[in-house]
Amino acid sequence: MRAFQVHHGKQIDGLTLISKPDITDLDSHEVKVRIRAVSLNYRDLMITQGIYPAKADHGIIPASDFAGEVIAVGSSVTRFQTGDRVMASFFPDWLEGELTLDKVTRCYGGDSDGVLREEIALPESGLVKIPSHLDYISASTLPCAGVTAWNSIFESTKLQPGSTVLVLGTGGVSIMALLLAKAAGHKVFITSSSNAKLEQARTLGADATINYIDQPEWQEAVLDLTQGKGVDLVLEVGGKETVQRSLTATGTGGTMAIIGGVSGFTGTLDPISLLFGAKQAKGIFVGSRAMLESLSRFTEINNIKPVIDEVFSFDQVPQAYEYMAAGKHFGKVVIKLD
Amino acid sequence: MRAFQVHHGKQIDGLTLISKPDITDLDSHEVKVRIRAVSLNYRDLMITQGIYPAKADHGIIPASDFAGEVIAVGSSVTRFQTGDRVMASFFPDWLEGELTLDKVTRCYGGDSDGVLREEIALPESGLVKIPSHLDYISASTLPCAGVTAWNSIFESTKLQPGSTVLVLGTGGVSIMALLLAKAAGHKVFITSSSNAKLEQARTLGADATINYIDQPEWQEAVLDLTQGKGVDLVLEVGGKETVQRSLTATGTGGTMAIIGGVSGFTGTLDPISLLFGAKQAKGIFVGSRAMLESLSRFTEINNIKPVIDEVFSFDQVPQAYEYMAAGKHFGKVVIKLD
Amino acid sequence: MRAFQVHHGKQIDGLTLISKPDITDLDSHEVKVRIRAVSLNYRDLMITQGIYPAKADHGIIPASDFAGEVIAVGSSVTRFQTGDRVMASFFPDWLEGELTLDKVTRCYGGDSDGVLREEIALPESGLVKIPSHLDYISASTLPCAGVTAWNSIFESTKLQPGSTVLVLGTGGVSIMALLLAKAAGHKVFITSSSNAKLEQARTLGADATINYIDQPEWQEAVLDLTQGKGVDLVLEVGGKETVQRSLTATGTGGTMAIIGGVSGFTGTLDPISLLFGAKQAKGIFVGSRAMLESLSRFTEINNIKPVIDEVFSFDQVPQAYEYMAAGKHFGKVVIKLD
Amino acid sequence: MRAFQVHHGKQIDGLTLISKPDITDLDSHEVKVRIRAVSLNYRDLMITQGIYPAKADHGIIPASDFAGEVIAVGSSVTRFQTGDRVMASFFPDWLEGELTLDKVTRCYGGDSDGVLREEIALPESGLVKIPSHLDYISASTLPCAGVTAWNSIFESTKLQPGSTVLVLGTGGVSIMALLLAKAAGHKVFITSSSNAKLEQARTLGADATINYIDQPEWQEAVLDLTQGKGVDLVLEVGGKETVQRSLTATGTGGTMAIIGGVSGFTGTLDPISLLFGAKQAKGIFVGSRAMLESLSRFTEINNIKPVIDEVFSFDQVPQAYEYMAAGKHFGKVVIKLD
Repeated sequence: MRAFQVHHGKQIDGLTLISKPDITDLDSHEVKVRIRAVSLNYRDLMITQGIYPAKADHGIIPASDFAGEVIAVGSSVTRFQTGDRVMASFFPDWLEGELTLDKVTRCYGGDSDGVLREEIALPESGLVKIPSHLDYISASTLPCAGVTAWNSIFESTKLQPGSTVLVLGTGGVSIMALLLAKAAGHKVFITSSSNAKLEQARTLGADATINYIDQPEWQEAVLDLTQGKGVDLVLEVGGKETVQRSLTATGTGGTMAIIGGVSGFTGTLDPISLLFGAKQAKGIFVGSRAMLESLSRFTEINNIKPVIDEVFSFDQVPQAYEYMAAGKHFGKVVIKLD
Repeated sequence: MRAFQVHHGKQIDGLTLISKPDITDLDSHEVKVRIRAVSLNYRDLMITQGIYPAKADHGIIPASDFAGEVIAVGSSVTRFQTGDRVMASFFPDWLEGELTLDKVTRCYGGDSDGVLREEIALPESGLVKIPSHLDYISASTLPCAGVTAWNSIFESTKLQPGSTVLVLGTGGVSIMALLLAKAAGHKVFITSSSNAKLEQARTLGADATINYIDQPEWQEAVLDLTQGKGVDLVLEVGGKETVQRSLTATGTGGTMAIIGGVSGFTGTLDPISLLFGAKQAKGIFVGSRAMLESLSRFTEINNIKPVIDEVFSFDQVPQAYEYMAAGKHFGKVVIKLD
Repeated sequence: MRAFQVHHGKQIDGLTLISKPDITDLDSHEVKVRIRAVSLNYRDLMITQGIYPAKADHGIIPASDFAGEVIAVGSSVTRFQTGDRVMASFFPDWLEGELTLDKVTRCYGGDSDGVLREEIALPESGLVKIPSHLDYISASTLPCAGVTAWNSIFESTKLQPGSTVLVLGTGGVSIMALLLAKAAGHKVFITSSSNAKLEQARTLGADATINYIDQPEWQEAVLDLTQGKGVDLVLEVGGKETVQRSLTATGTGGTMAIIGGVSGFTGTLDPISLLFGAKQAKGIFVGSRAMLESLSRFTEINNIKPVIDEVFSFDQVPQAYEYMAAGKHFGKVVIKLD
Repeated sequence: MRAFQVHHGKQIDGLTLISKPDITDLDSHEVKVRIRAVSLNYRDLMITQGIYPAKADHGIIPASDFAGEVIAVGSSVTRFQTGDRVMASFFPDWLEGELTLDKVTRCYGGDSDGVLREEIALPESGLVKIPSHLDYISASTLPCAGVTAWNSIFESTKLQPGSTVLVLGTGGVSIMALLLAKAAGHKVFITSSSNAKLEQARTLGADATINYIDQPEWQEAVLDLTQGKGVDLVLEVGGKETVQRSLTATGTGGTMAIIGGVSGFTGTLDPISLLFGAKQAKGIFVGSRAMLESLSRFTEINNIKPVIDEVFSFDQVPQAYEYMAAGKHFGKVVIKLD
């Protein structure tokens, strides 16, 4: 079968199409899946840039998120059968419950081979059925971006319904967070450098928008929108350039979910701002299979469709990475396999 | 009546004994208290040094924590009567429930007059009865140091019984946290520069001790004690010199409670360590009256006695500050009034 | 001023129009309110029937829920001013935090005079501002019915978004619960004896409807709708005739919120069903002022309008009671004062 | 190997010693354990009496709780090796997280063969290591009685430290609950018909004792001990004769954990008492493997030793059942295998 390979730090040019042996044997608990769609995450780009912790010096298959069809099952498999439409949980060993170190040691496309390939075999325990209202392309965005947004809003933070949530930019996690938070009855603010994107966010339900080019001190705009109080939750995806501003925008007793580092991972945080506002900064490391199941159910009940910006073919994988690197997207970038 | 006065940044020499008019009128909801003991907190020292946010440029009465006897009650007072032994909650407006900005706007000895005085009148809603097993000296340590420890372990963090807790040094909050955490069935580690103090901590129940002079990379010692996992909760009181080490000592999914800045408030925190460990840094801003009540009940049921290092008389207030500044204490420093 | 009076057990005929002295003096913390609308609850009807615990043998002013306008404020009042539109919290002493016995000792229209009157004076601490999108008639339904629904779904139960909720009948609590649960992204089932009402519930968002005349074993219909699993939460308002069926309809690990007794308070519950399903039965006793504030904010953000079935004038109070007793309503019955 | 067999409803006489084939093959994820100790639960007795839901009409091996030594491991086993000392979790499919129906479908000694046998093979996922301070006899009491007590106090109920807990009688769950609750800093009351047992409970830390022969209205004694407030948590193990009294003894906002039916499963519960006290009745269905792990860690940190009343040999199994039926025990009844 065909697959892509990535080398840590060799940039997008380092992506190469390789050939891997077909999967012939299945362990008794394994399921074989024909991959139909793979969604990209910012992490995948950072690995090509060499700025994300990964063990990919000698080349690994990239990407963590896919949707596909079960085409064979091992002898002991009970939860799936041939023809089932499935997604894989980001961490194969974090099924549910509290996070512990050993649950997040393994993940796809970081320390070991990922999913940008035509077929994969993996334990049935790591798979979840695709909700009925989603196609493969949409479903491929749930395991990492979707679960990260879900975990931030509904698991790691105990928000009361009717809270205020700030999302930064219009990448995959932020737009999914906008959809989820609105469907749960929260008030959502969003930032972008583009008025067109902000307009699009409004049609998706955003209650207020902030153009951070027009308002470089956008944290002040957030305080203004909240009568000086700040928001209950910020999904902080920006890193170096945004983290301290995000903390300022967080209200007394509120939470800043630390999710990513689009502008770099080298920022720092002032503990005193945490102390006198009784605020918390909470690292969000994707989530468990149980969270993916909860997210699936919630999207189904509320008919939530992930926002897909652009779909590329398997031949266009480098173009898909370039597209993501340009930072022009609104929502998710997906690779479609035939 | 006699009182002390402090000026922001005028050092301990700036402490002066002043005379204030006696309290003659009480509002209908107020209670008049004869103050019997005042405990000092590191914050009180930082105000003399000018490194704590306070509105004391023109002089205020310092200190926040007292225990005393009710000597008169207003016409509408229902919860107290003359002769009751009482403590005041740190924030008069934070009675219970979630923290909001307006609940922590007022506090004693920071933005307005405090309690280092012979008598005080205050609304009955801000007072709590002293548990029966404690004298005035012991009770005076509960409102700030006691509640801060309580909030860190039992309110802001949802620890399972049998968790591991790290306390830094042997100041008032740390020693109270040691007592509380042990009484609730947790495992507790403690650091100090003094083997004698560490030995004393062991007699109070500490499960392991670390001398940070002998082991400057003490966070590694914590990891060793936990088979590389780190602890579930750190009570971070050190600030600049300790905050990043404390974060390293915090386990995956664990919490660092941001409480103080003994070594300075200018430290920074690396958000990426939060992200990949799914850790949280949580500011602890003392706590509510309901927390003081819960703490009082818990100390009574478990016969917990706060550890008092030294008691000074009202005449010796500057010496008490000097003693605290020397950093040699183990537990609390208290001023006793006759 | 004019007011109504009710006697415990003297039926609707016992309602009499009386004259009370005008309010001339205000305590320093009190606010005087011109009452504009009063909503009725099933409890008010049960008091006329003598089947609700109340101290009304010698006649009290009935009803607990009103909305009105501030027309005077006491000398120490800080949260309100003349002209403010306000509602009263059901329990004047339960401001926030956990329920304790002393917080629910006093309530309006049960043990002491209620609000079916032209004017009232009460402490400012018991009042909440009306959200901007609601008029007096709508706002008058929030304090008891609205808060009970809120408490059941969002405070006493920790439902994950995307849970399944069952409401019984189309009374005030049930219809408000339908609106709130849908706005928070849950799936909602509803029962009624009327297909017309069920159709109306569908237009408000109900995901499935059950006519309990057609399906007397309606708990089986609930199990069918959930693939045999049962729902995550039942708002049990029916009492004697429904409580055991509601428990059957509750899924493993799920919650039955015990709210009322429309069919009588004499039912019993089988503890073994709780044990083997690890289910919980949780009494809901209205809620706190903080819950009323959260509810107000949530309805405002999501533009939720309480469903008003019928509005009566002050002269028509007995007719309003009769209308409620007939059990034909869908949503709330409100008395409008000029 | 030798094993015992029980028939549903055939009383203790129905217990027969049988011979089963030795275990020769292991599935790749299975572990083979030499059983060293089996503890009895009241449920095991109820199965002989035919009053517990079980599928044992044609005879099954009874009992659910054992401790033993790993004597062989399957080819894929990673968590255990030969020589490890282990216990089995009560529900092999409830590893962690929220309870769902499919997690509790299978259990030992109820619907299928249990553990009163010399050897057993089972998936490694269902096993937990014995804490270092416990021998086989003590460890055998943790999976059902220990976890039930743990779940009641620390998982299903969110008690603040320093709460009041009532345990009924001196059976295995109650005595373990006494030890756990005291080690976590709660106040514990206990009932019994025997002053000698109550004295013994005091030496284990009970704060107050009630002889229910002397005080048949023992719920009133509980109210007296709590100034009329009632306790925060009752572990209700009595069933028919006690459940309504236990509810009366539960304070406003408190919890009654529904655990057992020593006096019969046919009792009923009054929903109105739940409503007006905002109380909850919560079914406790043992617990997960994660709870067994938490319990093990907690007992190790706090050096808690389960209380063993009597140890019988494998030949004396019927006598052990008879002893339990007599209801004279204080703590657990255990069968020791050589």
